[in-house]
Amino acid sequence: MTMIGILGAGQLGRMLALAGYPLGLHFRFFDSASDSPASLFAEQITADYADTSALDRFAVGLDLVTYEFENVSVDAVRYLERSAPVYPPSIALEKGQDRFHEKSFFRELGIPTAEFSLETESISFPSVLKTRRMGYDGKGQAVLSSQADIYNEEVSELLVQQDLIVEEFIPFDRELSIISARSKTGEMVFYPLTKNQHRDGILRLSIVDGTISSQLQKQAEEYATAVMNALNYVGVLAIEFFEKDGQLLANEMAPRVHNSGHWTIDGAVTSQFENHLRAITDAPLGSTSPLGVCAMVNLIGIIPDMKSILKIEGAHLHLYDKAPRPKRKVGHVTFVEKDVETLQKKLDQLKEIYDI
Amino acid sequence: MTMIGILGAGQLGRMLALAGYPLGLHFRFFDSASDSPASLFAEQITADYADTSALDRFAVGLDLVTYEFENVSVDAVRYLERSAPVYPPSIALEKGQDRFHEKSFFRELGIPTAEFSLETESISFPSVLKTRRMGYDGKGQAVLSSQADIYNEEVSELLVQQDLIVEEFIPFDRELSIISARSKTGEMVFYPLTKNQHRDGILRLSIVDGTISSQLQKQAEEYATAVMNALNYVGVLAIEFFEKDGQLLANEMAPRVHNSGHWTIDGAVTSQFENHLRAITDAPLGSTSPLGVCAMVNLIGIIPDMKSILKIEGAHLHLYDKAPRPKRKVGHVTFVEKDVETLQKKLDQLKEIYDI
Repeated sequence: MTMIGILGAGQLGRMLALAGYPLGLHFRFFDSASDSPASLFAEQITADYADTSALDRFAVGLDLVTYEFENVSVDAVRYLERSAPVYPPSIALEKGQDRFHEKSFFRELGIPTAEFSLETESISFPSVLKTRRMGYDGKGQAVLSSQADIYNEEVSELLVQQDLIVEEFIPFDRELSIISARSKTGEMVFYPLTKNQHRDGILRLSIVDGTISSQLQKQAEEYATAVMNALNYVGVLAIEFFEKDGQLLANEMAPRVHNSGHWTIDGAVTSQFENHLRAITDAPLGSTSPLGVCAMVNLIGIIPDMKSILKIEGAHLHLYDKAPRPKRKVGHVTFVEKDVETLQKKLDQLKEIYDI
Repeated sequence: MTMIGILGAGQLGRMLALAGYPLGLHFRFFDSASDSPASLFAEQITADYADTSALDRFAVGLDLVTYEFENVSVDAVRYLERSAPVYPPSIALEKGQDRFHEKSFFRELGIPTAEFSLETESISFPSVLKTRRMGYDGKGQAVLSSQADIYNEEVSELLVQQDLIVEEFIPFDRELSIISARSKTGEMVFYPLTKNQHRDGILRLSIVDGTISSQLQKQAEEYATAVMNALNYVGVLAIEFFEKDGQLLANEMAPRVHNSGHWTIDGAVTSQFENHLRAITDAPLGSTSPLGVCAMVNLIGIIPDMKSILKIEGAHLHLYDKAPRPKRKVGHVTFVEKDVETLQKKLDQLKEIYDI
């Protein structure tokens, strides 16, 4: 019996546990909030990440530790490493938690990125001002169209923060992401590139429809391979790209299962959650082949009438047991269809009850 | 938030909960054994089914009740009906718990069965002597080849029991089962007929490979429809048939999710577990379309090396957190492939590590 400790008990931890129970794995969570999506069906230690006595209680009997969000305290991870192996390795967290280190790391590996600098004046307009740390779902960033924008409220709020990075604004053609997994033996698998649509900085729609060129897929896999090998990575890794004129520019990475990979639960032979667990438990990785053309729609802020969703043939509903609040991800809906036309028809049906 | 009480916390209850959490459903189990497959990730009341104060505690706040085994106490179900609706209706339990009532019920509906009688001498040899109640997985039955078999040990053990039924021995061509679901509104869905192979009375292999004639499928669906409508049924129902010379003979039914439907977790658009939950919560039923040619192999008595199973591309492993014991179902493996040849290749790979 393998007992896995998961830092963070949100929806990603919840879906890891749901994927892991059939493999005979057991779970214990650590989270600072008690009313978490995963606490319903696993033991949870509720405490601050700085509380080492709580971390000690969490660590008792764990075979290994993983985490479900990239802003997890590196100190907590380092502390836990003394009791049990932690995957992905903490170096991946450190790279990913700071946008400057992250983009510098991409550059060192020869992976193209937007221009970036710590000198907010050094990038031509339009540009994007971001906090170096703790940004997610569009939080902690603002677009600067001109020098004048420096004085607007949103930007002023950011400027009072200490650590900022400014990046070239990329008028991208598409946002794409690749979900990969690497095991301890260096075995790697890659899901097909996912096309992502955001609104207000939050992912709303992911599509995998077989229209990505094999050349672009190969390029993304090479970049993911470079990142994972450089970090001696173990687990699932997500890299988000901008596509501009057929070129991929790495935007950011997440050393964890990722929202743009949720379609894999219903839409791939092996889900990202199962492959993450296979990787960290040193089991063979599973096939990443898609089962059809897939779409994943995030339910944000509201849960539409459940029966209306289930009435759409082939709709797979995934709720997270989270109370709806503005901008909060409370669930997602997946479709796996035989062709793009059918998929579009299903999305149109969903649009009648939910504003995708 | 819908709170569902489940009588029985075995692997079927476990898989119901795993299918139900993504729908936002919550679960509480009742079982007489504490160390159950479902207790790992849901609240469980552990008590005897005759303990009404335990049943009262179980019933607090439940929106509805269901059950995962057909030998659940009808008295307990009747008791709980006073607190919350119970699906499937208890009449289905009563019919299914007694082989004589069950077969008489099939006959009343015009569904063919083997000849049967309560007079053990009245059926020509070979025949099968069975206990009327509590038989499962080949327990409580013995084949009589001739009058002399009445004196063998296995049969003598049965004869001391009060209630026996004797049935014509059917030298069947195939064993088939149909999994159906009916909702409160009378909506019905049917999975394709599954070909089942037993050993020592226990299901070992189920195959859904698209080779069943549409005529046979139609016949099975008509029988299932007759049964479900007669019982005003709500939930998933399994009916097992013998096929002989192209005819279906109903052998038994189970008013619950069924082992021969486990392939639907990975192999159908909607699993039998999700459709059972959709039916009892009055949600629209989901598509029963298979995603390929499918096989489900029961792991009985032993758990083969997990990594060797996961190494087989496309193997879906489902363990139940049960300690291996002879004749005990401890998990299953499913394959969903594009054609029969590939499926056979996968089964051959599994045979190298597990005696299907």
